[in-house]
Parts: sequence; structure tokens; C-alpha cells
Amino acid sequence: MKINLVNPNTCQGMTDKIALSAAQIAQPGTEIRAISPEHGPESIECAFDETIAAAALLEEIRKGEQLGVDAHIIACFGDPALDAAREIATKPVIGIAGAAFQLASLVSYRFGVVTTMTRTLPASEHLLQRYGYQHLCSGVRATDIAVLDLESIDRDTYNQLKHECELAIQQDGAEAIVLGCAGMSDLANELSEQLNVPVIDGVVAAVKLAESLHQLNLTTSKSGQYASPLAKKFTGQYQHWTRLA
Amino acid sequence: MKINLVNPNTCQGMTDKIALSAAQIAQPGTEIRAISPEHGPESIECAFDETIAAAALLEEIRKGEQLGVDAHIIACFGDPALDAAREIATKPVIGIAGAAFQLASLVSYRFGVVTTMTRTLPASEHLLQRYGYQHLCSGVRATDIAVLDLESIDRDTYNQLKHECELAIQQDGAEAIVLGCAGMSDLANELSEQLNVPVIDGVVAAVKLAESLHQLNLTTSKSGQYASPLAKKFTGQYQHWTRLA
Amino acid sequence: MKINLVNPNTCQGMTDKIALSAAQIAQPGTEIRAISPEHGPESIECAFDETIAAAALLEEIRKGEQLGVDAHIIACFGDPALDAAREIATKPVIGIAGAAFQLASLVSYRFGVVTTMTRTLPASEHLLQRYGYQHLCSGVRATDIAVLDLESIDRDTYNQLKHECELAIQQDGAEAIVLGCAGMSDLANELSEQLNVPVIDGVVAAVKLAESLHQLNLTTSKSGQYASPLAKKFTGQYQHWTRLA
Amino acid sequence: MKINLVNPNTCQGMTDKIALSAAQIAQPGTEIRAISPEHGPESIECAFDETIAAAALLEEIRKGEQLGVDAHIIACFGDPALDAAREIATKPVIGIAGAAFQLASLVSYRFGVVTTMTRTLPASEHLLQRYGYQHLCSGVRATDIAVLDLESIDRDTYNQLKHECELAIQQDGAEAIVLGCAGMSDLANELSEQLNVPVIDGVVAAVKLAESLHQLNLTTSKSGQYASPLAKKFTGQYQHWTRLA
Amino acid sequence: MKINLVNPNTCQGMTDKIALSAAQIAQPGTEIRAISPEHGPESIECAFDETIAAAALLEEIRKGEQLGVDAHIIACFGDPALDAAREIATKPVIGIAGAAFQLASLVSYRFGVVTTMTRTLPASEHLLQRYGYQHLCSGVRATDIAVLDLESIDRDTYNQLKHECELAIQQDGAEAIVLGCAGMSDLANELSEQLNVPVIDGVVAAVKLAESLHQLNLTTSKSGQYASPLAKKFTGQYQHWTRLA
Amino acid sequence: MKINLVNPNTCQGMTDKIALSAAQIAQPGTEIRAISPEHGPESIECAFDETIAAAALLEEIRKGEQLGVDAHIIACFGDPALDAAREIATKPVIGIAGAAFQLASLVSYRFGVVTTMTRTLPASEHLLQRYGYQHLCSGVRATDIAVLDLESIDRDTYNQLKHECELAIQQDGAEAIVLGCAGMSDLANELSEQLNVPVIDGVVAAVKLAESLHQLNLTTSKSGQYASPLAKKFTGQYQHWTRLA
Repeated sequence: MKINLVNPNTCQGMTDKIALSAAQIAQPGTEIRAISPEHGPESIECAFDETIAAAALLEEIRKGEQLGVDAHIIACFGDPALDAAREIATKPVIGIAGAAFQLASLVSYRFGVVTTMTRTLPASEHLLQRYGYQHLCSGVRATDIAVLDLESIDRDTYNQLKHECELAIQQDGAEAIVLGCAGMSDLANELSEQLNVPVIDGVVAAVKLAESLHQLNLTTSKSGQYASPLAKKFTGQYQHWTRLA
Repeated sequence: MKINLVNPNTCQGMTDKIALSAAQIAQPGTEIRAISPEHGPESIECAFDETIAAAALLEEIRKGEQLGVDAHIIACFGDPALDAAREIATKPVIGIAGAAFQLASLVSYRFGVVTTMTRTLPASEHLLQRYGYQHLCSGVRATDIAVLDLESIDRDTYNQLKHECELAIQQDGAEAIVLGCAGMSDLANELSEQLNVPVIDGVVAAVKLAESLHQLNLTTSKSGQYASPLAKKFTGQYQHWTRLA
Repeated sequence: MKINLVNPNTCQGMTDKIALSAAQIAQPGTEIRAISPEHGPESIECAFDETIAAAALLEEIRKGEQLGVDAHIIACFGDPALDAAREIATKPVIGIAGAAFQLASLVSYRFGVVTTMTRTLPASEHLLQRYGYQHLCSGVRATDIAVLDLESIDRDTYNQLKHECELAIQQDGAEAIVLGCAGMSDLANELSEQLNVPVIDGVVAAVKLAESLHQLNLTTSKSGQYASPLAKKFTGQYQHWTRLA
Repeated sequence: MKINLVNPNTCQGMTDKIALSAAQIAQPGTEIRAISPEHGPESIECAFDETIAAAALLEEIRKGEQLGVDAHIIACFGDPALDAAREIATKPVIGIAGAAFQLASLVSYRFGVVTTMTRTLPASEHLLQRYGYQHLCSGVRATDIAVLDLESIDRDTYNQLKHECELAIQQDGAEAIVLGCAGMSDLANELSEQLNVPVIDGVVAAVKLAESLHQLNLTTSKSGQYASPLAKKFTGQYQHWTRLA
Repeated sequence: MKINLVNPNTCQGMTDKIALSAAQIAQPGTEIRAISPEHGPESIECAFDETIAAAALLEEIRKGEQLGVDAHIIACFGDPALDAAREIATKPVIGIAGAAFQLASLVSYRFGVVTTMTRTLPASEHLLQRYGYQHLCSGVRATDIAVLDLESIDRDTYNQLKHECELAIQQDGAEAIVLGCAGMSDLANELSEQLNVPVIDGVVAAVKLAESLHQLNLTTSKSGQYASPLAKKFTGQYQHWTRLA
Repeated sequence: MKINLVNPNTCQGMTDKIALSAAQIAQPGTEIRAISPEHGPESIECAFDETIAAAALLEEIRKGEQLGVDAHIIACFGDPALDAAREIATKPVIGIAGAAFQLASLVSYRFGVVTTMTRTLPASEHLLQRYGYQHLCSGVRATDIAVLDLESIDRDTYNQLKHECELAIQQDGAEAIVLGCAGMSDLANELSEQLNVPVIDGVVAAVKLAESLHQLNLTTSKSGQYASPLAKKFTGQYQHWTRLA
């Protein structure tokens, strides 16, 4: 199968890292198209960044559909544009936050989330609510590590991240850790060994769920909320989205 | 004071109608800049439309700030890009759905929402949850009237809308009606007279709340969730958003 | 327009202070009738005080109606007798707690409430739940300043109040402060300047909302929960409420 | 033991009926003081009625304390003034709605509530929320039988009530019925026999709970929310409540 | 009346202690059959213990029915097998946790729960949710005292328990204490005297509720969720449960 | 990898059917041990059946561990004994209801559940709450088809099931269907083709999730709620569970 792995952050280093994580865990027959949009913010750290990135990301969902992929993954912990992507895609679309919550809930009673900037906390809380995992989450902790600082992470930054995970375990009662940024994908194994609890990276979780849906022949229901958008006119730089009825 | 009234639907006729509603109710010293973005969908009727419109709408928030307005109103019932707009604006930003819920809750125990397409129902429900008004809402009803069909509304369409309001009152127990589309702004008075309950249009509600905040010298708190976005690089068609630290 | 501003605490000094706050912010054509009931507790600080005050307050709502006012405000943070007042009034009735929550939610992501006695905390929590603002409130903090001690507030008491606001901001993540007592109405501006976040006083918030409803020609729906009470016999000191069918 | 059974409706016939129900079920050593206040509405059917009745009811709680009773029961399904009564009493105070919900939840998975007027439905819903029984209630149904019409109930009215109970069982899935008015106290046994499910009257439920608390030597905690009110001045017709510090 | 008091822990000392508590508080005509199952864990301290104990406990419910008891009590704070017991019994079944929550809510605004092992906390939280008392509970605290260590409690262990109760009162705002283990039944009176708040033991609470239901002639509704199980084949060590249709 | 697929219903025909479903969808290297316990009810249709089955099921979890399996699946829609199984197993344990909800939420906005007997509805609702999927479920519908009648399903029974699925789609707004019984596993494909929406069988969903966890090297966190049970004495027919400290 072919997976369209879209990183809505335009930072190429991060996309490369995610591509590597996905490739290492994918089944032999799974091909990964890892891409970031041409347009948009280098990193996503607030509602404004996410709003801009969401529109740009949809272009890559469309390209993936044209390339005949079997599933799409939105590789940013805010799961931006998930509903919109499901509307325009015929194949399943998975967000990495939702994927991580699902697998975390299978291996722990309560999981903690450790993420980047303090101001992204409400976004994580909103995702927990949207997916229904609030009561299974022991808390969300910010490290105030900027997304771009994760690219070539030094020991101090790594230790800062590890320390916040330890607090999640000891103070909040987390039994597993969900990493709250796609850019932490390469750190999951080392952290899990040192912390002695499951550490879940949403990127690889989403790859496994995409493969699972594909093998079960399950795809997005197009009757209802995720039906294709009504044909209509778009103007200006979005006019290529115009479809006539 | 000066209000930046942004209709994220690019349909000019709808913007004109909204401008008229706002002008009729504004206080003498209130000046209204009613505008729709250069880019984006003619009408907003699903998550995809809203995602595209959200990015385009932010350009008009920025222009409003540059023009020195005192408040911004997002004149689309989904309140798209509200958080992002609050981040980039220094002046308060009000969504018309939130505004309508607030005033409806002051004049009724339970209000009903009557909106356009069935597939926008989850958007309304999400807004009720976000603002905390779920328990004060007797239900959301769709008319399946398309947004553009509201532009030059005929008697049949009006009666269809009125009929759904009557069902909200009689079957759901609505004591007031919130109109679920900015394009219904011109119908509130006639409906209220015929239905004999308060009918709340979010556009004029938002104008009054904007004036209230201005007179009380209250504006968005910039300490916390709505602080200005971090400076960073944007690429492609969004590169004008790049700000250097 | 004419606003009936009822302070259910019978303490005259507090009523005078509220009257001043309201007058300073009211529009030119707005006339304020500020009054406290003849009967009832000097200050309201527990459920017992509130229950007694509620019955007495309704007399002033009735008088306001007889005087032809255009809106009523209940100027006590517990919003006592709000439903009962809406039943017997033909004009809108606004509670200052509800009014403050509404405006606070327009200028912050999460607001804190800072109030008087510890034992009033459940009352505030109940109001947040009733109006649906629990998830938008970062917490309610008591100062254990008695209501009457707010009348001629000294520097120590002021600093105590300011300190609790600072804790709300720093420890709870409040981005704006709602003052939890009508008797704090005169302190909002000074606190806002010193704390550098919006500080919302419910009295002036309610005046603006009353003016907004009046200008929009919106009043309490009398079909449903707020219909006039059924005619019936009242005995003893309440016999003047007897109405025959 | 001695129970102060206060019916806040001033209608004497209803008080007599409640007294009889209580007496029939009380243990040999239990003495019942059944009383209605001197002041207030003949019957309680809306928020206004309840607000007036609440203040008047507290006089009877005080008298009961002076008479040395061992427990108080508020015999009106809205449980009016419950918190205030617990503040001024040293002995436990039980509301009949809360009592009925407790026993109903011991003998059914989901119980239905059948009450009087449609406009009292929000009051019942608020009580279910306050006590936490919403998820255990299959629904609240109004009969639109006026409280006073229950006094000398005819067959038609009885059948109307029984029919609504049947709908609660068949359509809502109620497995037991809670009677939503103290004035239905004398009908519980007949209804239970005809409906073949448990029918719970709050008056007798409250008597049993009062006896239980007494035998267990449990009374209201006076540390915290139900501590005695602070001493303060009351004016006018409530001046007898003045207590000096 | 005759009460079947089943302690699903197989530890005889604990059953003896519970029997004594129940006997001391029961009314003259109430006879108590206190028993622990032949099979199962000595003490219940995790989901595994509870799952095994639940199956064994049902044998004693059946024996109680055969002996003609008038009510059953499950004397373990997890209220294990409560639904299953209600299905197979014709007489009411009461769990001690639910019973304690009910009486605690009658004498306090918020109660705290003090229990045994940390890992039983989720069980207590689940019970609070099931019965709807989450919002009336100030928190659940574990003492990490093992159930069997309660048998012959020494001063140090008692003081550890008392200390946790004090923290519940001072830090969490508990106004009453619910003891989270049947094995603490003999400590309620001493704790209450020393802590000066109501301390509720579920065993005696359940006895009083059982007597109340009996006197009111209320028993489990057999129409609906608690109807008798369908007849079917059971194999192996459970084959005696086989019933033919 | 090796999966321990435990059907807690002791009916062998059902276990054979489930084994077939799992085998058809498993990856080449996945070996399935499909088993039902020696003890317990032929089918699980109420809380009593489930309580007995839960204890018996744990024996098979233990045997699976002894056989060195890599994951356990509990193949009954009530997910009985899930927490207990996670405590005693070192490898992940997945319930089929939870698995089905997860995959359904990836391919639809709202899914419906169609299950067997009416009296199992509360069990399904409890599972939705436990896992947090209540708001993503459009409703649970019972067919009143007995579990054993699914074994050799005839056309009438199939059509009854299909009809209830159609009602879920048309009346409740379900966009996908979750089959509420492991015994429906063989019907998912035919139903999906005829209904034109995704139809999710929990058995195959759980197999895919078990494979996913295995490939990601994720297993149950043993620090916290799912730590191994404390060593203690078990008596009677459960004495083999005794472990010494």
C-alpha cells in the first residue's frame, strides 16, 4: 500500500525525520510518501500557525489522492484540517494525535502527554475532548521546547524532555507517555527504555493504523459528515478548488 | 468607533446585506467596514470550505488592524479562525455565533438554532460545546437551504425557514430562535413578529457586544493563549506572514 | 432607556457605589434607578442570606415594572432570584455574574474569578455551571474579605484582593479577572492597570448588555419557562402577591 | 425521635395528607410535626412561587429547632431552601426529591419521574443534576395536573397520572417511578400495584432516611458549606433574623 | 427482617467485625446473616481479586435467597457483582459504597473518601461516577494500608488513617468522611469524635437502607435491566447455574 | 506472533466462527489460538452471565501467558474482565468492543452500534463511556437476536439485523456500523456491501491492533493500575490463584 504522510510544518528536516521513523516501522509492502506543503509556516505552535497550515496541507491531500495513495496521515500533533481532509479524500485520513491516544489507551490505564510550547496546551486538551480521551489522560505537560529545536536535539534539551516525562509519571500518575509533537518521533525508543513505561509516537502509531484499515478494507464513510464538499466557486489564490455542480 | 466586519464567504451580495443590518443597528458614532476576503469560497457549508476561508479571512483581520479599527467581527456562523484572529489582533474579535448565544441566553431559558445545510449541524454543536451553551440549547435544526439561496430569498424558502422555527418552538421547546447563518440577518425582525418569540441574529448581536467592549475599554488579553504568534518563517503564498524575531 | 438596578444587599453604601459605577459607564440616554430592598440582610454571604434576600428583591422588580423601566439588573454576584424575576417581569432581567462571564469570555481564553468569603465558592461554581462557563474559568478564588469591608476599602484589603488576582493569573492561568462581588465595582480600573489583564466588573457589564438588548428590541420570551406565574393565593406577609385567575 | 415535616405550600389539605402518609410509615417511636408556613403561596409551581416559599419555609425550620426536633424534612419536590435550611439547623435536613432519587436508585437501573406542570420540568432536571442522578433517570414527564387538583383527586385525574407513568415505563424505559409532588403521596401504593414496578413517594422515603440518620447518630457537618450563617443585621420584615456577632 | 450480609473477602476476621457493626446498629427485629464465600481471595485489592470474588459472591446471594432473606448487602467497598446480584435476587441488593455515598450526601456538601491501597483509587472513582456522586466528592485518598492490616489495627496504622482523613478535611475541603473499606467499620465512631465531622461507614449505612426499603415494601424492579437472567447452559464448575427455559 | 483469542462464551461453534474470521485477516506470520473457557455460560447476555464468565476467562489468559503468546484478545462485546486480564498478563490485552470503536472513529464522524438483546444496551453504553466514545456514537440498537441464534443464522434473522442497521443509518445518523457481538463476525462484509457504509467487526479490528502493538513493541504498562496483583491466599475452587509474597 501507499501512504501519504503529510507534515504541515514546512520545515524539511522534520519531514525527513518523520519519513525515517515511518519507513523503519512500515510493513514490507508499505510505501511512504513523506511531504511537507510548499506553502505555510516552518513550524506550528499556535492557532494562527495552524490555521494557515491547514489550508496549505489540503493541497497535499489532493495530490496524494491524485497519486492514488491508500491512506493519508496528518503528521502534526494538532491533527489540523482533519475533517476537511476527510471530506476531500476518498481514502482514510488519520491524525497522529488521535492515533497515539488510541494505542496509548490499549497499554495503560492513564497516559500523559508531553508536548512543546505552553501555549499549545489548549490544543492538546481540545484534541483529548474531541476524541473522548480526557478521562484517560493524566495530564498534558509542556516543555517549552520550540518545534525547530527538536531538529538537532542536544543532550540538555533531551534531558528537559525526559524530566517532564518523569514528572508526568511521578506526579500525575501517567503509566505511558504520548509524545506531543511529530518532531519527537525519533526519541520514543530511547525515552521508553529510560523511563520504563510505553512511550507512544503518533507517527508510527498512525502508520500501523493506516495499514490496519487498508488490510481490513475500511475507508472513510462518504455518507454523512465526510461526504464530498458541494461544488462551488472559489476565488483568488484558492480558485483551483472551484468545482462546478 | 470603527468595526471591521469580515464576512469570510466571498459572495458580495451577502456582505452587502450584512453591512446593511449592522449599519441599521449601530450607534451614531460607530463606523462599519464590511468586507469579504479576496480569496476563498463563495459560501461556507462544510469543514473544507471553512478551512480554506479561515486562512483567507486572517488577511482581512490584518488589514483591519492596519486601518486602526477598534473591534473585529467574524460574520459567519461557524466563527471560523476565531482563535487565530485573536492572536494576531490587538483589538477584540467577536464571532457571530458566540454573540448570538450570549444574547439568546439572556432572554430565554432554552433557545433553538435554525441553520442552513444538514451537514453543518456538527459545526453548530461544536460551537455550543466550545462556548458552553449546550444545556441552554433546545436543539439545532437544518433547513437545507443553501447559503447562496438566502441572497434573494423567495416566499417558499422563507416559509421553509419559518416552518423549521415553528418546529423548534413546538417540538423542541425553544423559547427563542438563533438564526444560524449571517445571510439570514435581514429576516430576524419579520420572523420575530410572526413567531412571537425573540429571534436573534448574530451579526447585530456582535455589533452591540463590540460597542459594549469598546465603551468598557476591554480588549483581548495578550497574556496567555491569545498572545501574538511567535516570529517565524512562512513560505510560498503565505510568506508575507513571516516575521523575524 | 431606564434601568432598574437592584442591589439585594440592604447596605446603602454599597448601593451608592454601584449606582456611581453604572452612571459613569451608561450611555447619555440611559437613566439608572439604583435601589436596595426595604427588607433583608445587610450583606449576602451564604445560602441563608441569599434565600431571604431573594424574596425581598422581587418586590423591587415589581416596583421597577410599575415604574416602566426597560430592563432590570440584579446587582449581587450570586444572581439571586433571577428565574423568579424573569417570570414576573415583562422586561429583560440580567444578573451581574452572568454578564461578567459573557464579556470575560470575549476577551480571554480562560478567566479567573476572585470573590469574597470562602463559603461563597460553591455559589460561584454553581453559577459557572448554570451558565456553561466552567471550562472557560481557570478557577474561583476567595479573599475572605467580608462584603461590608469593601465599603471603605483600605490599602491592606486592596492589596489582599490584588494578591489573590495575581495568584489567579500566575498559578491558575487566568488571562482576565472577573470580580466576584458588586461591592468591588469601583476597583476594576485600578486593578486592570496594575495587573495588566482585563478586569471585568459585572455591574457595568450588565449595564452594557441591558443597553444592547434594548437597542436590539429583545426582551424575555414569555412563552415557556419565563411565562408569568399562574394566578393563586398567597398568605400572610406575601398576600399582596395574590393574583386571581 | 421527632421529625419536623415542613410543607412549604400553604395549602392545609396537602399538609394533612402528607402528615398521614408519614405517620403510617414512621416507626413507633417517631413523632411527626407536620406544618405549613403562615406565609407564602398556596401551591408551588414556578420559580417565583418557590422563591417566596423558600423564605417563609425557613421560619418553620427555626421553629422546629426551637422545639428540639431531631430532623427536618422539606416536603416539596423542588427541595426549596435546602442549603439555607442546612445552614441554620443543627439537625439534618432532607429534601423529598433527593430522598426519592436515592431509594429509587437502589431498586432500579433507571427510574422515571412523573410530576405536575410542564413548567416545573426544568426544576426536576436541575435537582437530578444537583444530586447527580441524571444518568439514572429515564426522563421526567409532566401531567399538567395542578398541585391543588391533587387534593381531592378524581378518577380521571388519577388515570391521567397513571397513563403518564405507563408511558414512562413503556417509552422511556423507566423501571421504577418517582412521584414528583408531595401531594401524590397517598397514591404511591395503588399506582405500584397497578403498574407492577416500584413507585417511590419522597415523603415516606425522607421519613425513613431521617430515622436512619438519627439511629446512626449522623447530622449535618457544620464545618464548611453548612456552617451557621455569619451574624449580621436584617431589616424590615426579616429583622428577627438579625444576629449580633 | 433478615439481612444477608455478604463479605466477598474470604477473611473470617473481617466478616466477624462487620457482623458486629451491623448487629450493634440493627433494629430489634432485624436478624443479620454475616457470611463470606467459601471460594475466592482473602482480600480484594485490585481488579483481578474483584473479578474472582464477584463470581464466588453470587453463590452466597443465591443461598440467601433460598434462606428467605429480605435484603442483601455486598460488604466490600467496590460493590462487586452488584448488577449480577440484582438480576438473580428477588429481594433488594445494596452495595456499601453506594449506601455510604447516599448518607454522606445528606449531611455534607462535599465528602471525602479515605480508602486502602493506591491502586484501588480508580475503583472508587468509577463508583462515584456510576452512582453520580463525583461532584459531591472532594477527593479520594489512599492510605496504602492493606485490607488485612485492618484486622488487628495498631495505633500507628490508626493514626495513619486519621492523618489522611485530616488531610481530606483541611486540603480537599471534605466536610464528612466516607470510609473506603468494610474493614474500617469499627473505627467510624472514634474517628468521628476525633475529627469532629461525620464519618460514614458503608456497612451500617447499608443496614439502615435495607431496613428502610423493607419497611417501605420496596424491592428491585424485575422489569428491565434487573430481570432474571435467561435460562441457559453453564459448564464446568459453574454448571449448577444452568437453568432450563 | 501468536495471539490468544479468548471467547468467554463457552459455545464452541461461536469460537470456531471467530477463529475463522481472525485467520482470514491475520498477517502471514500471525498464529491464532482461539479458545473458549472450560467453565461458564454458553452465551453472555446479562450482568450475571458476564460476572461468571469473567472469572472463567482469566484461566485462559493465564494459559495463554504460559504458552508464550504475544497478545490476548477478549472476544466478547462486553470486554469482560479486561482490567483483571491486564493485571495478570505481561502482554497486551485488547477487548473487541474497544477495538471496534477505535477503528470506527477513524472512518466516520458518528458510528452506530447494532447488538443482540435489549438488556445488553446498558453494557454497550457503559463501554462507550469507559472508552470515551459516547459523543461519537449515534446510538446503540438492539435486535433481540439471541447470541446462540447467530450460530446458524437464517435469512430472516439476517434481514432483521440488516434492518436495524438501516434504521441506525437513516434515523440515528450512523455513518458506519459497529457490530455488537463477536458472533456477528462473519456478517460484516455482506452487510457492508449492502448498506454501503463501513461495517466494523471487533474481532478482526482487535487482531489488527494486536499486530500493530506487537510491531511497535508496545505492551501493557506494569507501573500503576495494571501492575501484577499482590500475592495473597485464594480459597476453594480458586486456590490455584494463591501466590505467596
